[in-house]
Amino acid sequence: MSKLYIIKIGGNIIDDEKLLSSFLKEFSLIKGKKILVHGGGKLATSIAEQLHIPQQVVEGRRITDAETLKVVTMVYAGYINKNIVAQLQASHCNALGLSGADGNTISAHKRSHATTDYGFVGDVDSIQTDFISSLLERNITPVFSPVTHDQQGQLLNTNADTIAQELAKGLSSLFEVTLIYSFEKNGVLLDTGDNNSVIPVLNPALYKKLKAETKIYSGMLPKLENAFTALSAGVNKVIIGHAANLKELVAGNSGTMIINE
Amino acid sequence: MSKLYIIKIGGNIIDDEKLLSSFLKEFSLIKGKKILVHGGGKLATSIAEQLHIPQQVVEGRRITDAETLKVVTMVYAGYINKNIVAQLQASHCNALGLSGADGNTISAHKRSHATTDYGFVGDVDSIQTDFISSLLERNITPVFSPVTHDQQGQLLNTNADTIAQELAKGLSSLFEVTLIYSFEKNGVLLDTGDNNSVIPVLNPALYKKLKAETKIYSGMLPKLENAFTALSAGVNKVIIGHAANLKELVAGNSGTMIINE
Repeated sequence: MSKLYIIKIGGNIIDDEKLLSSFLKEFSLIKGKKILVHGGGKLATSIAEQLHIPQQVVEGRRITDAETLKVVTMVYAGYINKNIVAQLQASHCNALGLSGADGNTISAHKRSHATTDYGFVGDVDSIQTDFISSLLERNITPVFSPVTHDQQGQLLNTNADTIAQELAKGLSSLFEVTLIYSFEKNGVLLDTGDNNSVIPVLNPALYKKLKAETKIYSGMLPKLENAFTALSAGVNKVIIGHAANLKELVAGNSGTMIINE
Repeated sequence: MSKLYIIKIGGNIIDDEKLLSSFLKEFSLIKGKKILVHGGGKLATSIAEQLHIPQQVVEGRRITDAETLKVVTMVYAGYINKNIVAQLQASHCNALGLSGADGNTISAHKRSHATTDYGFVGDVDSIQTDFISSLLERNITPVFSPVTHDQQGQLLNTNADTIAQELAKGLSSLFEVTLIYSFEKNGVLLDTGDNNSVIPVLNPALYKKLKAETKIYSGMLPKLENAFTALSAGVNKVIIGHAANLKELVAGNSGTMIINE
């Protein structure tokens, strides 16, 4: 099986033009098949404010009403996605921007929750691996925005970490997948205040222990749950680390390597 | 050669949710290979106003400064494109939304003009016919937004009529192309006030005559110039007519048929 790198780039990097630009240059230099998944960043919040659309956040998650979905679609699937694609094209990486609706690549359903109505938020049902792998075979690099659809005409705001994980799982039967979560920290940290306290290797036993000691901060928990799920589903490697060290992350020389044993 | 329909849908239709929805249903029913090209509509102007970005129009063309390009990219390549794609998917048409940057499908250069700086407006240089035809062979329907790129990382606002024409020309060596401009009028009208005064067939001689008599209104002139250029370049048929009559336009039973003799 040929190798495939699926790389998630976090919102804080997207907000910083210089960091994003140097990240994209490094990304374009990765040899072989690769997929980029990008999150949102602060632009959606700022545009929503300017358009006087009130933003509601419950337990760290944005409630996506119809007007907010409009902004999400404009900013994530439009502005951010197309600018990333254009920059990658300039670095001779043949990028193709996608939402989950495009080519029916990612279908999802509107989340139902006992107590909170998250609005137009989607949980992923399935990945169109056939079409995505045909793009990769043509040396095209898919760039996914965190927007999916329900196959009934409704777009849905979908967590980018989850999209990366679902792509990794779905494509692991066709490729040897390395899933990289890159963001503004050096990896999973033992001390959240110290960027040098990276845990080099994290397995379920250590994760359980650190979680019990509340040494792993809350934003990291879903990322790690995603990582373990991906490994159980056949993904080869999961690495979490700093976007500025992309080359080293790809080489396995930086960040936290998540393993399943 | 197999048949290919390239259909441009105008801004006034896009502004009307019901008209757009019934147009998309008809579009999804067209058998065989097809491409949709959409224009902008009023949403970009309204969003720009709400974001306090002053809009400048010179000779009917929007000047695209950096902030306006941001809005154009958000609204055209994001909101409108993805909503059209999601609606087509709901009608079992496997649509894929594209800007010219995606897959490097349409490259362009920033327009240079002796007296007017149009800003980030692009004139098309080339079409990536290989990739587009590979999508068509997979029964995927490309949906183009009027945004291209210059291969140097710069997105460019590009006239949707021109994109439709360039796609038609570029793909005419691989397919028997029918190019349809669909909008809010019944065709090329002899009397612009009378929607029933459709000219059924228009050739260069009649066009020259009507133009001299100023019977063809100014918005129609570039559309017709585009049409004749497309025919000269190998496009099989060009039809101009009402979006509500899409089925009849495809069958050649409505609108104005432009011919080159």
